[in-house]
Amino acid sequence: MSCDFIALANQGVQKLLPYQTGKPIDELKRELGLDDIIKLASNENPLGCSPLVIEAIQAELKQVALYPDGNGFNLKQAIQQKFGFELNCITLGNGSNDILELVARAYIAQGESAVYSQHAFAVYPLAVQAVGGVGIEVPAKNFGHDLEAMAAAIQANTKVVFIANPNNPTGTWFERHEFEQFMAQVPAHVLVVLDEAYVEYVTDAGFINGFDYVKQYANLIVSRTFSKAYGLASLRVGYAIASADVTNILNRVRQPFNVNSFALAAATAALQDESFVKQSRELNSAGMAQLEQGLSALGLGFIPSKGNFIAFDTGRPCLPVFQALLQQGVIVRPIANYGLPNYLRVSIGLESENARFLAALAQVLR
Amino acid sequence: MSCDFIALANQGVQKLLPYQTGKPIDELKRELGLDDIIKLASNENPLGCSPLVIEAIQAELKQVALYPDGNGFNLKQAIQQKFGFELNCITLGNGSNDILELVARAYIAQGESAVYSQHAFAVYPLAVQAVGGVGIEVPAKNFGHDLEAMAAAIQANTKVVFIANPNNPTGTWFERHEFEQFMAQVPAHVLVVLDEAYVEYVTDAGFINGFDYVKQYANLIVSRTFSKAYGLASLRVGYAIASADVTNILNRVRQPFNVNSFALAAATAALQDESFVKQSRELNSAGMAQLEQGLSALGLGFIPSKGNFIAFDTGRPCLPVFQALLQQGVIVRPIANYGLPNYLRVSIGLESENARFLAALAQVLR
Repeated sequence: MSCDFIALANQGVQKLLPYQTGKPIDELKRELGLDDIIKLASNENPLGCSPLVIEAIQAELKQVALYPDGNGFNLKQAIQQKFGFELNCITLGNGSNDILELVARAYIAQGESAVYSQHAFAVYPLAVQAVGGVGIEVPAKNFGHDLEAMAAAIQANTKVVFIANPNNPTGTWFERHEFEQFMAQVPAHVLVVLDEAYVEYVTDAGFINGFDYVKQYANLIVSRTFSKAYGLASLRVGYAIASADVTNILNRVRQPFNVNSFALAAATAALQDESFVKQSRELNSAGMAQLEQGLSALGLGFIPSKGNFIAFDTGRPCLPVFQALLQQGVIVRPIANYGLPNYLRVSIGLESENARFLAALAQVLR
Repeated sequence: MSCDFIALANQGVQKLLPYQTGKPIDELKRELGLDDIIKLASNENPLGCSPLVIEAIQAELKQVALYPDGNGFNLKQAIQQKFGFELNCITLGNGSNDILELVARAYIAQGESAVYSQHAFAVYPLAVQAVGGVGIEVPAKNFGHDLEAMAAAIQANTKVVFIANPNNPTGTWFERHEFEQFMAQVPAHVLVVLDEAYVEYVTDAGFINGFDYVKQYANLIVSRTFSKAYGLASLRVGYAIASADVTNILNRVRQPFNVNSFALAAATAALQDESFVKQSRELNSAGMAQLEQGLSALGLGFIPSKGNFIAFDTGRPCLPVFQALLQQGVIVRPIANYGLPNYLRVSIGLESENARFLAALAQVLR
């Protein structure tokens, strides 16, 4: 006697197609028998991480067998010291991916809806679908969020709106006044998740900092990550800043030990090294200029980006170009699954990596 | 204008009381101003972890900024080599806690039910409640699972039964024939999660190994952890073995990078060091005998246990005893919240830690 355990899964789960991760270097080496590979596919920090992080990790080697502090006291205190929020406004996540899922699991019941933009981070629709929610995808405007249309798309059963600034994979952004107009239109009972995974890379002085708005808007959740500018992607740690009530709820649904000890210690140390973040930002600005120039020289259009990546138009279906780059040992990210069938996303690397990518691309397109 | 974001949360979430974690040593030091503290509260491995694990972690320091392999290829391959399961029958989790939640999120829709025992691991009811499910708690028999009553408690809308062998926090267990009788009674469409977090500590030759049954029962999910005998609690890694279909579904709902790189590397290394696990098991057996003898000498009853912990009857409400032990710098776990108001659970430590605990307990009870 056997049963169909695919069909027995929850409805939303049955329709779920898992998130496509960037190809790990090891996997590509196995597949292609290549040795010299660069990966510009996952928006990782090409500088690695702060030396303070390495020290902090080494100190953790003494207590591998002990459970993490489930309350993340030291990291929360470091966030408080740096950004001024009370501990009861901070939720720690196993990456900011965890934060996005916690919001969905806490606030979206089966059949309720959430709004997000076309070309937005794939985890928003996945998180909504996994809880049996209904995703409302709003067409993009110039590849970015159409905030006015997004506010207008909110239904009576909408519980959450996901917005990202800058957005991944397009690198698009919105301005302070656009955000404020948007928040004025969103009903007070609808939560807004402002995903700022890439905000540390933004160099504009007047750029929105979601943290400035958390006290003003009780329905605002700002999510951040240590995976990008802080260079801790391997360890999985992100966090949310929100009102005490929302934070209370998010902490009820998170796993008791969702963030591992190494991540807690590493993130606490990373917050102490502002110069590393500055250096990462500067390298990124220079690399962005290098790639913009190189893509233009190849006659390729791109989407202006404030992240640590840039999406460009290959002028043809992107998958064969992606495959040809792989054969050259260069991993980038096709974003056909984001509704951009001709685009590839390339992460900003070291100068030499950017150059190698551009040379490989030139050869592939020749 | 403001809203009640507690009341706006999903129904199940509103009733959720977060899991109570063991008090971290640092927190107690802060609270009590004590320096010399032993923690026998979280069933951690007093031997630490294998030296191979330390080496594996150090090798990861080269790539802190890179995302983990979302498919966990190397660890799955190590599990395959050790236990013989195909990769498509393995689900990796951020601790086995993650596995338990994945099952609930994948298979229990709002209003559907799950069965578990009285005095069973607190995460079972939490995971069920978080998804809006209905928990059916079956009264324990001699502090352990009443498997016959649990099978009889299954309702038409029951999707999952959670059982643990040995059980935490009681240390109770069931035998092979009891399990087989139980599985024969459970309808084929109802999933059984067999939580074997403590199985590596069992010394009996004839003890059930859930892995022996996965091919036989398509509705069986065996969950294991690296947090106990392998000594990797800080890193968060566990796994499930199940049919390919169930594994397919669990992998759809897990976060793309749910297990961090350090955990993947550490667990892969830990599986290579069987002698460390053997040493841990032997230390545990000796420590268990030491504590049984010591508790008996104090005239205290205890629940015979096959885990790395023992629950004993203080003969009075346990919280004052717990508090008094804290004052002596000894952290154990009150399990009043498990329906055992007079019991404390103490983890087996090093011989000296067990002795210190027994001496402190004698003084406290005097």
